[in-house]
Amino acid sequence: MKSIAILGFGVVGCGVAEVIAMNHDRIAKRLGEELVVKKILDIREFPDSPFASLVTTKKEEVFEDPDISIVVETIGGARIAYEYTKMALSAGKTVVTSNKELVSTHGVELVKLAREHNCNYLFEASVGGGIPIIRPLHRCLAANKVERIAGIVNGTTNYILTQMAENGSDFDSALKEAQAKGYAEANPSADIDGIDAQRKIAILSTIALDGAYVDPTKLFTVGITSVTTKDMEYAKEMNASIKLLAVFENGEDGAFAYVAPHLVSKEHPLACANDVFNAIMVTGNAVGDAMFYGQGAGKLATASAVVGDVMDAAEHAERDAHVAEWFNAGDEVLAPIEKHHISVLLRLPDSVSDDAVSEAFPEISMQPCVYEAEGEKAVILGKDGDMTEAQLAVGLESFENVISVIRIF
Amino acid sequence: MKSIAILGFGVVGCGVAEVIAMNHDRIAKRLGEELVVKKILDIREFPDSPFASLVTTKKEEVFEDPDISIVVETIGGARIAYEYTKMALSAGKTVVTSNKELVSTHGVELVKLAREHNCNYLFEASVGGGIPIIRPLHRCLAANKVERIAGIVNGTTNYILTQMAENGSDFDSALKEAQAKGYAEANPSADIDGIDAQRKIAILSTIALDGAYVDPTKLFTVGITSVTTKDMEYAKEMNASIKLLAVFENGEDGAFAYVAPHLVSKEHPLACANDVFNAIMVTGNAVGDAMFYGQGAGKLATASAVVGDVMDAAEHAERDAHVAEWFNAGDEVLAPIEKHHISVLLRLPDSVSDDAVSEAFPEISMQPCVYEAEGEKAVILGKDGDMTEAQLAVGLESFENVISVIRIF
Repeated sequence: MKSIAILGFGVVGCGVAEVIAMNHDRIAKRLGEELVVKKILDIREFPDSPFASLVTTKKEEVFEDPDISIVVETIGGARIAYEYTKMALSAGKTVVTSNKELVSTHGVELVKLAREHNCNYLFEASVGGGIPIIRPLHRCLAANKVERIAGIVNGTTNYILTQMAENGSDFDSALKEAQAKGYAEANPSADIDGIDAQRKIAILSTIALDGAYVDPTKLFTVGITSVTTKDMEYAKEMNASIKLLAVFENGEDGAFAYVAPHLVSKEHPLACANDVFNAIMVTGNAVGDAMFYGQGAGKLATASAVVGDVMDAAEHAERDAHVAEWFNAGDEVLAPIEKHHISVLLRLPDSVSDDAVSEAFPEISMQPCVYEAEGEKAVILGKDGDMTEAQLAVGLESFENVISVIRIF
Repeated sequence: MKSIAILGFGVVGCGVAEVIAMNHDRIAKRLGEELVVKKILDIREFPDSPFASLVTTKKEEVFEDPDISIVVETIGGARIAYEYTKMALSAGKTVVTSNKELVSTHGVELVKLAREHNCNYLFEASVGGGIPIIRPLHRCLAANKVERIAGIVNGTTNYILTQMAENGSDFDSALKEAQAKGYAEANPSADIDGIDAQRKIAILSTIALDGAYVDPTKLFTVGITSVTTKDMEYAKEMNASIKLLAVFENGEDGAFAYVAPHLVSKEHPLACANDVFNAIMVTGNAVGDAMFYGQGAGKLATASAVVGDVMDAAEHAERDAHVAEWFNAGDEVLAPIEKHHISVLLRLPDSVSDDAVSEAFPEISMQPCVYEAEGEKAVILGKDGDMTEAQLAVGLESFENVISVIRIF
């Protein structure tokens, strides 16, 4: 019998207990022993839960029980979760988590702590919810230099953008609908400002860079709050969707990671991810393009990834599943975003002259957009890879009345 | 330094050597030691290859070299590859392969042999080429009961079907084009008759059934040779694509596995896989739908998966990566395909009366197709899950002049 504890009995924690109960027999058959939730640590009580009898507020019942070798951390945030994760790892207990904030903030220390105590810190569920991505990237694609990762990694924003595109809703009403459906928090900032996506691409970038830590808080990030229904009109006419992409690129100019809304052609496989679905495309120098698609959030989907990690830990106590080693490589691990080459759709009032645009973006490739809304001028800049973020920023300073700028994937 | 040997220096074997050379430094960094191809066993000579000096015809140079702990089998087929795989495993050498025929035919024995000799038999590359699928299914999705797998797992047939759909080519000319481009063999039977897909879904089914062996040769299989340009017309009008799907289902009626062309709605994520691309959707009772997309064949893509397995074996000699255990569970592991519930598009000459159709399919749901070609009658049967393969077969006996039957996904 393999006993585990769950820290934090919120949506995901509850899902973990449910999946273990629901698939009890087949998990036991696979592991060759029963997998049992022995304790659930939470400050709340859950009298109506079928797992009520397991709930405790006493942390020593988890951390001092030698019988509990694996701990699931589904507290969230980087304060209590951080303390408890350190406590568990220091006690030699493998920690499995879905906590992207904690992994992306303290991953280096926690992975090191796990190694020092001969246990594991596993976080398949921290990116892409139920979608297998961390282990495939680290393990199956290990033979590749990862040249690019481009992912729709936040279901809330993808739901909002899908609603705007399909129903013509504006941002505010699409957000309200997402909140009503429970897809967005009352305070939606972490989603709509791209912070959640930032953390996830930081984790994927660190893995793609063989453990060189990427700090999510340093990443260039544009959220979706400024995306308008008019932008959606342009996207439609261009046979494209607007998606919040979290991007990692590693090429001749160095490595870049950032988050921003992008126009994605409807012919591109990433465009098939609508509503709350996630999709992550990884481009390796051997494999080419490989894409992973599925539910990026949700109780049972996220629990699927957590319990998968728990089972891996139960079967292979000795090994490090996700991480060769994470290490602080300084800020130079990424190149300055100003040097990143991009192309954009730029919308300006049609009072702006063609000459003014040419002057603002000298020697940068320029072509008219297939569509222009009334009273507007729309240009595509940098399609030939001849424009950097820095050049875009300088050029934009020439205009007082930019309507919008959207990057093109 | 970790030394490996490659058995069979064809396209994939050569790709393995190339990927190891191309990504030499990052592989060494990751493993903490250099990965070196020490010998390449082939009966041919390759004077122009940069790896010519490694080629040998003497098998004892591989099997009797204690320095070689991992062997890549890229011979193909189930004769010499079978002998050599047994020889390597018996010598305690882990074998990594892309050989779907061998894995699907002798997997039970070879996995057992590996366990007995404390080494591994790894075959991530045997399904989906470079796409991570075996390990994610076995490992990341381990907490799920797998309810369905539906995959476009053969790039050749997907290329042919894409050509037929996009260019209006008929089957024969699309096949010729695939052959001209090197996507199809001179003898294309293994692809177009669905045998390759059969083997791949048998491997995935065995994993989904926790090791209960599924014999590919027993699977109900329809190839693509009877798909016509007129069928493509129907698909287009129905906003669907015709895809050769390899399907595993495990529900109340038991487990089924089969291969057949299907109408797949263009709204479905699987429909985004065109040309030689593969896509495999796995539905688990916790994760919901998760899809894996990428290059299902090709030199470097397949080599990416092989070298990923080699690296896993190099890092974790002790563990079994893909297989808990495979075992012979008899033919009863699958339910008889006759009991499988399906819906189909049935095309008949319009001389057939409505009453004749109703009589042939009593108590089976029936609706007209949105489109009917001139001189035809087109009905959709069994949309409500009320028709089995057996009922379809019986009903079809009533007609002498069925134009076509295509399953609907």
